[in-house]
Amino acid sequence: MFAKEVYVRRRQTLLKKMREAGQNGLVLFVGNAEAPAQYKDNCYKWRQDSSWLYYFGLDEPLMAAVLDIDSGAETLFADDVDIDDIIWMGPQPSVRSKADAVGLEHTAPYGGVENAIALARKSGRPVHFLPPSRYYNTLKLAQLVPGGAPSEPLIKAVVSMRLIKEDIEIQAIDAACALGYEMHSVARDAIKIGIIEQEIVGKMEAVSLAKGWGVSFPTILTQHGETLHNHGHAATIEPGKLMVIDAGVESNEHYASDFTRTYPTIGRFTQKQREIYQIVCDCNNLAFSLTKPGITYREVHLAVARKMLEGLSALDLVKGDLDEMVAKGIAGLFQPHGLGHNMGLDVHDMEDLGENLVGYDPDQTRAKQLGLGSLRMARCLKPGHVITDEPGIYFIPALIEKFKKEGLGFDFVNYAKLEDYYDFGGIRLEDDVLVTETGARRLGPQRLPISPDDVEAAMAAAR
Amino acid sequence: MFAKEVYVRRRQTLLKKMREAGQNGLVLFVGNAEAPAQYKDNCYKWRQDSSWLYYFGLDEPLMAAVLDIDSGAETLFADDVDIDDIIWMGPQPSVRSKADAVGLEHTAPYGGVENAIALARKSGRPVHFLPPSRYYNTLKLAQLVPGGAPSEPLIKAVVSMRLIKEDIEIQAIDAACALGYEMHSVARDAIKIGIIEQEIVGKMEAVSLAKGWGVSFPTILTQHGETLHNHGHAATIEPGKLMVIDAGVESNEHYASDFTRTYPTIGRFTQKQREIYQIVCDCNNLAFSLTKPGITYREVHLAVARKMLEGLSALDLVKGDLDEMVAKGIAGLFQPHGLGHNMGLDVHDMEDLGENLVGYDPDQTRAKQLGLGSLRMARCLKPGHVITDEPGIYFIPALIEKFKKEGLGFDFVNYAKLEDYYDFGGIRLEDDVLVTETGARRLGPQRLPISPDDVEAAMAAAR
Repeated sequence: MFAKEVYVRRRQTLLKKMREAGQNGLVLFVGNAEAPAQYKDNCYKWRQDSSWLYYFGLDEPLMAAVLDIDSGAETLFADDVDIDDIIWMGPQPSVRSKADAVGLEHTAPYGGVENAIALARKSGRPVHFLPPSRYYNTLKLAQLVPGGAPSEPLIKAVVSMRLIKEDIEIQAIDAACALGYEMHSVARDAIKIGIIEQEIVGKMEAVSLAKGWGVSFPTILTQHGETLHNHGHAATIEPGKLMVIDAGVESNEHYASDFTRTYPTIGRFTQKQREIYQIVCDCNNLAFSLTKPGITYREVHLAVARKMLEGLSALDLVKGDLDEMVAKGIAGLFQPHGLGHNMGLDVHDMEDLGENLVGYDPDQTRAKQLGLGSLRMARCLKPGHVITDEPGIYFIPALIEKFKKEGLGFDFVNYAKLEDYYDFGGIRLEDDVLVTETGARRLGPQRLPISPDDVEAAMAAAR
Repeated sequence: MFAKEVYVRRRQTLLKKMREAGQNGLVLFVGNAEAPAQYKDNCYKWRQDSSWLYYFGLDEPLMAAVLDIDSGAETLFADDVDIDDIIWMGPQPSVRSKADAVGLEHTAPYGGVENAIALARKSGRPVHFLPPSRYYNTLKLAQLVPGGAPSEPLIKAVVSMRLIKEDIEIQAIDAACALGYEMHSVARDAIKIGIIEQEIVGKMEAVSLAKGWGVSFPTILTQHGETLHNHGHAATIEPGKLMVIDAGVESNEHYASDFTRTYPTIGRFTQKQREIYQIVCDCNNLAFSLTKPGITYREVHLAVARKMLEGLSALDLVKGDLDEMVAKGIAGLFQPHGLGHNMGLDVHDMEDLGENLVGYDPDQTRAKQLGLGSLRMARCLKPGHVITDEPGIYFIPALIEKFKKEGLGFDFVNYAKLEDYYDFGGIRLEDDVLVTETGARRLGPQRLPISPDDVEAAMAAAR
C-alpha cells in the first residue's frame, strides 16, 4: 500500500475530473468479494478489484465506498470483525483505522451502502459506477443500482488517470518485471526433453509465489505456440519443437509483469526456426525503436506488420507490394493478435472498463481486420504509458485453410509453401515498455536474452 | 477422466434414486464458467464444478445437462468451437465426441438449455437442481429457473452417492495424498529462522503445480496457529514459535488431500510446547483408533474432546469432572472447530450442497455449542467414507477473554494459568482417513511424521 496522501490525491483528482466533465451526484465503488472455487468457504486466492486498489488501497473483501461529487464527502462501507472472525481470521484493525490509513473521513457498515444509494436515487441524484469485473460485483450492482448502467464519464476519468503511471507505480512495475525476469530464467533453465510441461510450470510459479502474489495470469507454456492462449500443460517435451512461454508475475503490491520468450526445446534453433524467429525478433526491436511520445501504437503495429511481411517475403511465404499487403491485413494471417496492450495493476490494464475506452483515443475507431482488430492499445503514446511489445508469427493450419477456402489473399500468400510450416508451431517475443519523455525504456532490471545467439548461449549455459 | 461406463452408471443410479424418492420431471446440472480474477479474459485457474465432474467428467467451461427422470433421456448442452476459438484455444474435439466419451445420447447448443427448461416448466414439470457453488451459477440458475429453489431430493440423492467413495475414487485420493505427503515434506525441510513464510509457500505450491492441479485450498502456513484460517504469509520465521502448516494438493483428477502438521521453528519443542503437542497427538491417534463402521463421528469428536480435557487437566489448565466438562462444551474453548469433514472431489466434500444435508444423518441435529457446533461430519460411519482427523488446541486470547468476561466455565477453567499461554499459538494435526469394512486406513503412501520425537528427527535430518 502507498502513503495515505496518494489515495487522497487520486480521489480528489477523480472528483475534480468528474466536475470538469459536468457530472454531479455520487461515485460508487464496490470492492471484490472472495471468489469461490468450489464452495463459499473454499475460495481462489484473494484478489482485490484493481480500480479499488488504485483509489482506496485497502486489500480486503467486502468493502464499498461512496464519493460525493458535489460535496466531496467520502464514506467507506465495511464491517468490523466479530469474535467468530477473530477465531478464524485473527485480530484485525478496526474499519476506522483502515479508513484513516487511506484518508477516508466517514465509515459505515457494509450493508449501509444500499440505503445510501437508494436515498440518493430517490432524490434524483445520479450514481456513477464502473462496469463490474466479476460475477459478484454484477450481482451486487444489480442489487444496489437496479436498472443502472456503468457511467461512461466515470470510466473516462478513471482511464485517464490509470493510463499514465505515476513514479511509484513505475517502480512497482519494475519490481514485478524483476520477478518476471527471474521466473522466466528459471523456466528457460528447466527445459528438458522428456519431462512434462507441467513440471516447468511448477518451478516457475514457485518463484511467483515465493516472492510475489503469484502469476499475473494463467501461465502459457506450450509446444503449440500456434494456439495463442494454450493453458494445458500435460504434454511431454519433445525434440525439435519450439516452446512458447508467456508468463508474468504479480508483485505483492499487485502490479503485473508480462514477458514472452520462445525456445527451441533442444537448445538450438533449426535453420527454418531461426529464419522465422529472426523476423519476430526484428519486429520486436523495431517496435521498441519506434515507441515514443507522439506516435500512435496503431502506427507501430502497422510498421511491425510491414516488417513481418518483408521478412516473410524474403522466405517466399508471401509476395507482392508490402504496403498493399499491410492495407489488406495479410499480416493477420500470421499474427492474428495486436502488437500489445496496456499493463499496470491488471496485466491487460483496465480491460474490465472496456477495451475501446481504454485503448483507443476518441478520434480512433477500431479496425475489423484480423490482427489489427485485436489491437488492445492503439492510442497516441504519452510519457507514463506502460505497454507490451509482443509481435508473433504463428502457422495455424485451421486459419490458413479457412483463408484459402474463402479465397482470401491468393495474390499474396504462397499457400503451397505454407504447407511446409503446418507443424512449425508459433513464436512470440514480448517485452514490457515504458513510454518516457523522449522515447521508451524496457521495464525490469535487464532484458531476457532474445537474439537467437543469446538464447542458444543462455540455454547452453544451463546444461 | 474415468471410463464412460462410470458416468453412465452414476447417472442411471441418480435417476433411479430420484424415482424411488417419488420424484419426476427434469434434473438440471449447470457446469462452471471461468471465474474472472480481474476481468473477463484474465481468469483464475479453471476449475469445474465437482458434482458436474462426478456425473459428467467433462472438464470444460460452459456446459449444462438435462436428465429426464421419467424417460431417462439425457442431453448435453454445449457449443462447438469456431475459428476464433481455434486461434486462441487450439483445435478441440466436437461436442458430439465429448458426449460420446461419457455416454450422453443427445447434444444441443449451450443456449438451448434455456428453452428446454422453459418448456418443461410451462408444462408443469418439476426442474430439480443443486445449490449453486459460484456466483456465475447463481446468475445462470436465476435466469434458467427464475424463482426456483434447489431440490432437496436431488441433494440427498447426490450426497448419498458421493459420500461413499468408489474404488477408483479411493485410488485417486490416495494419489492426491501421495502428492500431499511430498508437498508437506518439502515444507518441513524448508523451515528456517529468518526467511519469510511466503518462501516456503512458493516451494510447497511448486510441488502441487508440477504434479497436480495445484493446492486443494489456499495454504495455511502460520506462526499464529491460534488463527484457524490465516492466509497471510508475510511474516519472518522466528525462533521459539510453532508453525502450523495446513495444506493439500488437488490431483490432476481433481481429488483432494488435506494434511496438517505443526512444527517448532527451531526444530525442537520446548517442554511447554511438547506437553500440549502430545495431547493433540494423542487425540489424533485416539480418533483414528475409534474410527470404524457403526460409530458416529459425533461420538468420536466427543471422545476426543474428553481426551483433550484429560490432558489439559493434567497440566492444571482445566479441572473437574471430564464428562461434565465435555457436556458443557469446555473443549470448545481450546478447539473451537470440529474433529473433521468429508473429503473427495472437494476438500470439504459437497459443502456447497449444505453442511447439514452432507454431514448429518436425518436423526442427528447440529449442536449450537462452540466446537461441536462446527463439526462438519457427524454421521454414523460407513465403509467408503473419507474423512479428516484433525484435532487442535489453540490459545486464542480474544476468545479466552470473552469466555471470562461472560462468566463461562469458571468452575472448570484455570484462567489465571491460561494467561501463561497467551503467546503460545496453536497446534493442529490432521490425517486423511478411509472408513473400511472393519475399521479405518490412513490415506496416502505413508503417514507424515507426527510424534514429537519423529518430528524432531525429521527436522534434524533436513538441517
